[in-house]
Amino acid sequence: MPYITLTVTCPDRRGLVAALAQFLSQQGANIIHAEEHRDTTSNLFYQRMQFDAAKVDSTSSLEKGLKKLAARFKMTWRLSYSETLQRVAIFVSKVDHCLYDLILRQRSRELRCEIPLIISNHETLRPVAEQFKIPFHCVPVDKTTREQSERAQMELLKQHRIDLVILARYMQVLSAKFVRAWPSRIINIHHSFLPAFAGGEPYRQALEHGVKLIGATSHYATANLDEGPIIEQEVARVSHRDQLGDLIARGRDLERLVLARAVRAHLEDRVIVCGKKTIVFS
Amino acid sequence: MPYITLTVTCPDRRGLVAALAQFLSQQGANIIHAEEHRDTTSNLFYQRMQFDAAKVDSTSSLEKGLKKLAARFKMTWRLSYSETLQRVAIFVSKVDHCLYDLILRQRSRELRCEIPLIISNHETLRPVAEQFKIPFHCVPVDKTTREQSERAQMELLKQHRIDLVILARYMQVLSAKFVRAWPSRIINIHHSFLPAFAGGEPYRQALEHGVKLIGATSHYATANLDEGPIIEQEVARVSHRDQLGDLIARGRDLERLVLARAVRAHLEDRVIVCGKKTIVFS
Amino acid sequence: MPYITLTVTCPDRRGLVAALAQFLSQQGANIIHAEEHRDTTSNLFYQRMQFDAAKVDSTSSLEKGLKKLAARFKMTWRLSYSETLQRVAIFVSKVDHCLYDLILRQRSRELRCEIPLIISNHETLRPVAEQFKIPFHCVPVDKTTREQSERAQMELLKQHRIDLVILARYMQVLSAKFVRAWPSRIINIHHSFLPAFAGGEPYRQALEHGVKLIGATSHYATANLDEGPIIEQEVARVSHRDQLGDLIARGRDLERLVLARAVRAHLEDRVIVCGKKTIVFS
Amino acid sequence: MPYITLTVTCPDRRGLVAALAQFLSQQGANIIHAEEHRDTTSNLFYQRMQFDAAKVDSTSSLEKGLKKLAARFKMTWRLSYSETLQRVAIFVSKVDHCLYDLILRQRSRELRCEIPLIISNHETLRPVAEQFKIPFHCVPVDKTTREQSERAQMELLKQHRIDLVILARYMQVLSAKFVRAWPSRIINIHHSFLPAFAGGEPYRQALEHGVKLIGATSHYATANLDEGPIIEQEVARVSHRDQLGDLIARGRDLERLVLARAVRAHLEDRVIVCGKKTIVFS
Repeated sequence: MPYITLTVTCPDRRGLVAALAQFLSQQGANIIHAEEHRDTTSNLFYQRMQFDAAKVDSTSSLEKGLKKLAARFKMTWRLSYSETLQRVAIFVSKVDHCLYDLILRQRSRELRCEIPLIISNHETLRPVAEQFKIPFHCVPVDKTTREQSERAQMELLKQHRIDLVILARYMQVLSAKFVRAWPSRIINIHHSFLPAFAGGEPYRQALEHGVKLIGATSHYATANLDEGPIIEQEVARVSHRDQLGDLIARGRDLERLVLARAVRAHLEDRVIVCGKKTIVFS
Repeated sequence: MPYITLTVTCPDRRGLVAALAQFLSQQGANIIHAEEHRDTTSNLFYQRMQFDAAKVDSTSSLEKGLKKLAARFKMTWRLSYSETLQRVAIFVSKVDHCLYDLILRQRSRELRCEIPLIISNHETLRPVAEQFKIPFHCVPVDKTTREQSERAQMELLKQHRIDLVILARYMQVLSAKFVRAWPSRIINIHHSFLPAFAGGEPYRQALEHGVKLIGATSHYATANLDEGPIIEQEVARVSHRDQLGDLIARGRDLERLVLARAVRAHLEDRVIVCGKKTIVFS
Repeated sequence: MPYITLTVTCPDRRGLVAALAQFLSQQGANIIHAEEHRDTTSNLFYQRMQFDAAKVDSTSSLEKGLKKLAARFKMTWRLSYSETLQRVAIFVSKVDHCLYDLILRQRSRELRCEIPLIISNHETLRPVAEQFKIPFHCVPVDKTTREQSERAQMELLKQHRIDLVILARYMQVLSAKFVRAWPSRIINIHHSFLPAFAGGEPYRQALEHGVKLIGATSHYATANLDEGPIIEQEVARVSHRDQLGDLIARGRDLERLVLARAVRAHLEDRVIVCGKKTIVFS
Repeated sequence: MPYITLTVTCPDRRGLVAALAQFLSQQGANIIHAEEHRDTTSNLFYQRMQFDAAKVDSTSSLEKGLKKLAARFKMTWRLSYSETLQRVAIFVSKVDHCLYDLILRQRSRELRCEIPLIISNHETLRPVAEQFKIPFHCVPVDKTTREQSERAQMELLKQHRIDLVILARYMQVLSAKFVRAWPSRIINIHHSFLPAFAGGEPYRQALEHGVKLIGATSHYATANLDEGPIIEQEVARVSHRDQLGDLIARGRDLERLVLARAVRAHLEDRVIVCGKKTIVFS
């Protein structure tokens, strides 16, 4: 059963929910699920409404009307159709667990998207891409060529009309310029419970600190590494018996689970960035 | 900051959300948080809306208007004011952990309610009630006098104008008649992960089955014991090292946590019974 | 660093730990990790000892000595060498998530075993086996031919010198005869939190009961379906918003995680069956 | 059934387990549960053995023998008798949830200890102490009098023959001198998932960072605040709907649970400090 999802951010004002609900009702929309939330810090109002696509009279009239309403209420909005799948590019380096996980979830239709592109700075994972018949592009990166590499990557994203970039354990830092070109459209997985153990070797740090839980964090990429708005986190228990290799193995489960949940939430338009944080609707 | 919460259940129909939102807006209500949900099995529509109390022009006009709207849309509704605390009676037998837990959470204002009454079939916990200066009534129960005991209990509930009954490890079965007189207003805690291990000795059963997780379940009481609509569940890990006493101790943490979460959700008007199940808004 | 693991079950008796530890010390064994446990119900004593393989003088003298000691103390024992990988057969039907998961964990050396054989009653997953170059045998099963099919399966297990059988969402019931031929060497994954929702459609049952957590259970297969000794269980939170498809998707994560943990524990000789239950050493 | 627990730390050496097990067997000890672990970083060996007290011939001969063995193997050891309860002092300031929790767990015999002393820098919680008839001493602390206050506190600990100090949300920093006088015998609860959000206002920091999980950490106090060896940690999920007050309420559950688990592990001699980390036997 096809449905349409509308997300809205705007300054809080009385009558907002009523105006939007009435407009949707006039367009024939029948609400399946909705959530509204006022953020008391920013005094912004956030809405997500899901409704039957079949009963909407005309999507062009729907979109036209929304534009008007948006102007009146200073809304930022986004309309998405369950039948129109987002196009996702996955960036990887050498480890394969997140890549396999995302592909298999997409194949089982748990993640409702298309994956027309995999980009890597190594050849290692080409066979995985080939198993699933997904175009694979190797764009080597080193310090001297980063600008040029990023140009090539952005060109690929453009060619393939990509909506969302997933950094699935891609071990390179993207430039501020790249990240700013894709605001709230690049999802990264960090292998620690941020803000603890930011940086390169979180499992080693966790082992040295003797923590009893390790974690993983999925967040939107921003210019400041490991500080983007957090979408999802999860932890797992470890003990004195665990060596570094055990932590890494346990961590793989966290990484793929947390990344998949964050990507799913994004694809279902359940995430809205709110300053340095996220609203994640249920 | 005082607020008002409105919960609504009604047959699904286009324009519902709009009509309600518009009415509220006209009354001066400014929505803080709201959630709407259509249950596809029953085709019923569920709403919960929270708004600033301060800006509402007149609560009598609000209530009058809601009555009209309710008639038009066949709504079941409930309006609650954050300043008007629900009055809660706690039923106990001999174990004290849930009782202490509920009282302490109420004292710390995590549970926004009054506790004017504790009823028990034993004298054991009278000192706890006295510590906190809460009226305690011992109503002994045995097979031959159950009807009479329940009459006494109901009289006490009436006298104290009780809104909600919590069975905090009360080890007696209430009659169908009693339960029906308090629909969706009696919350029980069962010390297992229902439907597994219903009945009297769940920890012993868990031990014998060799399960690796034990649980607790909070649900509304219905005529069929241990089968009321589930509000909340949680589990904890156990191992071959755990004896019956360890399971019981671990279970106490689950019981008080699960019961407190269920009671809190109920007091915040986040729970609506939907057939044999519950909607629990976030 | 290669190591040897010794697991022992025997009637409890004073001096047991000393006798075994002294024998191992005489053989040159240096203990890395050990755990001993007395089960008070059966009065049996369980030990697991892990020691450096490099320092052991002679494995034949080790094994000969153990035989003598075993006779004296009525021990059941098992010695395993980290360098000798167990040979695992995976039984599947049509769903692929557990199969992929087991293969990828084996490829990343998280599961230390060989997978020389996949058996299915359908052709569906042959391409997965081929991707990873694992021999795949389709043995169709129907009611009239079950005996014949099981003979063919057992022949394949024999040919490939299989140590452990994993039922990775294999949707056929194995006969009591088959199961008894592989005591504590067939691991099944059931897609519910057993003993709740045994049988064929656990997610549908979970949805109808309105439980707030769903689970998965990994256990050794026994003649009574869904009642074998439990090795591992895990749960995940669900809500009124989740449809059957959401439960199934959430459940896939549980199934593969729980199955992988159980298989890993088995391969590391951390599981000993103790009546209807298991000891799972840390 | 009374039992004795022996914990041992010593440099690793072949024959260690055998020598100790043989000695215990000669003394009549029958092992109930034991665990041995070699830490590969420090090359130290850790043992915990629990055995029936009833069958031990003579505790004085047991202790004398252990001293000899300890000299030979350079062992640090500790022998504890389940019948001899440790004496615990609880330090508090103004919040009561951890205090109530510890007392109630002690009263239900989940925590096997005596609580003969509560010390606070405020009068606020005196009534709680009085409810349970526990001596309460108010020792005010300010910058100019800290040394004098600590002398008074240490005198009280001495008078009451205290074995373990629990800082149950005690909001004062203890001097390095105090902490060093009680090595691995002061347990603190910090209201964050350390090392994230060390310092004074962790819930506010958590809110500002937009983390999706909050945590609590129990650790031994050391001279460097919030950096002592971690004993136990736990987390709970939060969302954009949660305000500071919700985080604090959720955190209270974590704090009391984590602190209670750490204290229980300590009282059961399951914790051994190993450099900056802890071994916590199961």
